[in-house]
Amino acid sequence: MFRLNENYLKLPGSYLFSTIGKKVGAYSAAHPDKKIIRLGIGDVTQPLAPAIISALHKAVEEMGHGETFRGYAPDQGYDFLRNAIADNDYKARGCDISADEIFVSDGAKCDSGNIQEIFSVDNRIAVCDPVYPVYVDSNVMAGRTGSYDRARETWSNVIYMPCVAGNGFVPELPKETPDIIYLCFPNNPTGAAATREQLQEWVDYACKVGAVIIYDAAYEAYISDENVPHSIYECEGARTCAIELRSFSKNAGFTGVRLGFTVVPEELKCGDVQLHSLWARRHGTKYNGAPYIVQRAGEAVYSPEGKEQLKAQVAYYMKNAHYIYNGLKAAGFTVSGGVNAPYIWLKTPGNMTSWEFFDYLLEKVNVVGTPGSGFGPSGEGYFRLTAFGSYENTVEAVDRIRTLL
Amino acid sequence: MFRLNENYLKLPGSYLFSTIGKKVGAYSAAHPDKKIIRLGIGDVTQPLAPAIISALHKAVEEMGHGETFRGYAPDQGYDFLRNAIADNDYKARGCDISADEIFVSDGAKCDSGNIQEIFSVDNRIAVCDPVYPVYVDSNVMAGRTGSYDRARETWSNVIYMPCVAGNGFVPELPKETPDIIYLCFPNNPTGAAATREQLQEWVDYACKVGAVIIYDAAYEAYISDENVPHSIYECEGARTCAIELRSFSKNAGFTGVRLGFTVVPEELKCGDVQLHSLWARRHGTKYNGAPYIVQRAGEAVYSPEGKEQLKAQVAYYMKNAHYIYNGLKAAGFTVSGGVNAPYIWLKTPGNMTSWEFFDYLLEKVNVVGTPGSGFGPSGEGYFRLTAFGSYENTVEAVDRIRTLL
Repeated sequence: MFRLNENYLKLPGSYLFSTIGKKVGAYSAAHPDKKIIRLGIGDVTQPLAPAIISALHKAVEEMGHGETFRGYAPDQGYDFLRNAIADNDYKARGCDISADEIFVSDGAKCDSGNIQEIFSVDNRIAVCDPVYPVYVDSNVMAGRTGSYDRARETWSNVIYMPCVAGNGFVPELPKETPDIIYLCFPNNPTGAAATREQLQEWVDYACKVGAVIIYDAAYEAYISDENVPHSIYECEGARTCAIELRSFSKNAGFTGVRLGFTVVPEELKCGDVQLHSLWARRHGTKYNGAPYIVQRAGEAVYSPEGKEQLKAQVAYYMKNAHYIYNGLKAAGFTVSGGVNAPYIWLKTPGNMTSWEFFDYLLEKVNVVGTPGSGFGPSGEGYFRLTAFGSYENTVEAVDRIRTLL
Repeated sequence: MFRLNENYLKLPGSYLFSTIGKKVGAYSAAHPDKKIIRLGIGDVTQPLAPAIISALHKAVEEMGHGETFRGYAPDQGYDFLRNAIADNDYKARGCDISADEIFVSDGAKCDSGNIQEIFSVDNRIAVCDPVYPVYVDSNVMAGRTGSYDRARETWSNVIYMPCVAGNGFVPELPKETPDIIYLCFPNNPTGAAATREQLQEWVDYACKVGAVIIYDAAYEAYISDENVPHSIYECEGARTCAIELRSFSKNAGFTGVRLGFTVVPEELKCGDVQLHSLWARRHGTKYNGAPYIVQRAGEAVYSPEGKEQLKAQVAYYMKNAHYIYNGLKAAGFTVSGGVNAPYIWLKTPGNMTSWEFFDYLLEKVNVVGTPGSGFGPSGEGYFRLTAFGSYENTVEAVDRIRTLL
């Protein structure tokens, strides 16, 4: 008789955003007349930039003719895209990353869920608290996290690194030594950014203790501060200790287009074995490449017109971020984030729990956000608002929330 | 210090098609004047059908306007696509499968690699021999296959079910009892098809011993025989024991577009736990949906024009299959497959090993096929040719191979 992967049964509840979706759906069904504004899930709302639309049409046309039709893509992605990434995201910033070290994928969520596979089950992970749920959940599924404490909402074999007001939402080095360290800057959910000096400290620490850093840089396009690095490879020594995950979802609005990539440097080794070769094997065996037309869309992100159009798109969302940040601060809320990131991290008023505030906001002013406690215990008492709505909706949402204080 | 998933290190050599790619690349570089014809990897060559191109352009246009832009897709896929699948692939064939039981993905290779994750590591798998390498390799990576015997090229904890001339390349029920049974009909690589009676015997067996069948039906569009089922759900009892994998790669030429789906019926349970809920959790946590534009392309496969155009495309490839089958048979080769499948399974002449014949064919007549031994020990002495080339190339390849006997 077949048996199940019992690790799945340890997972409490469903995926955070599914739960939110269900709550909002139920409210919406009961109150069809209410206009709900969603600043919850980090989904973009602006249409794809003209340069990308034009690249997509062109690639679609190629697929319709025998001479230009493309079948299976190369495992790691087309050279035209990997070269554009290496040149623009790395070499232009002084990072020594070659096209061969880049693995194109269908998005950073998949990569961040799958990357743990190449590590031993007995490795111990460290995560920021609060944290993007996929890092922990995918490790739970693999059996790496021990047992779940329902009261504390933590796993016995995970090292939690609190990100709280006291440390500016950037974690301190952990007391216990981890094997795998997940870091995400600019951070989801807090919107905090690590400075070059802070990130260098993490790289030095990982090199010293023999840990690997999985660095999620999905929000790097939102950085405005000169002293905040866009890539972990801006830090010395990172090629021997860090994997970087990148996404086209937020810098180019590809949440529904699906494209991302992972960088695994050649020097990153365990003994004599390159992690690059393991990830390549996984890619070759369990993945079959991103669609050709989507890879052409990715290439257009790096064209001169694409760059200009996307700079304007990012500026549009950051205008929202500033409106939320300034508007709620002026109204008396305690807020952070929103400077180098499209997320605003709000302290819930009047000692409400995160889910209490979620319900309160949904019912009183029909605004959807994300409860901080959904990202981990240190997120309790906080609330995430995203800048990815339209400007008009963002202004209206802030004006509605203001009325609550 | 972090440690690796050592199961990866047990994998012998690289993925079969990567090895072939390297061999062909080396030969081609050394002989740039030779025209190589590739009937190796199962990649399609005909352009996307007009109905699909038109659906893609329309969806791209939608992504360029704020009112019609789509961000994150629903985890399991859009209703418009899942309904079209349920109606056309299942209800129209009398199979009781609902849209909620369908999980849209980026292809059957990913699904067939990922599906093992929801099962316990101590389950024992049974595979056809020869077999599509991903089934075994993904189980090796998970630590489910025991140790590797280099001489026999088999894993100690895998039940191999020989598919040989004596049983018409359809396996007999195994002597040892498996927990998970991988079946693929019409078969890759042998091109054999199981009749409704044969498949019913497998369903009855799985129900009796409490095994789950992972049924890969990627090639169902090539079935011409009335007595060969297109879906395992045409068999009684399959809803309690079978998962079905489907692909758009071969029926619609989507190898470079990436779309597939998995069916997990609600009745398929281990104790009280539905496999549906585990796969849904995996999908929600480690996957983020197929691109909107690709799902619209998938929908067009089921439109009246799409159906007509794709019927012609399948007929085009099957004309190739018949040409290879008849041509080589007339020349004195021993061939099978090619009737309900786009693959021809060729006995190597003169007791050559599969790789000897691969090299011989590449060097003597510049034709690329796939060595049968790459699919498992019982594939030794066989060779796979695919019908996915252009008609002109297929005719030329057959004419060239004929000269060898």
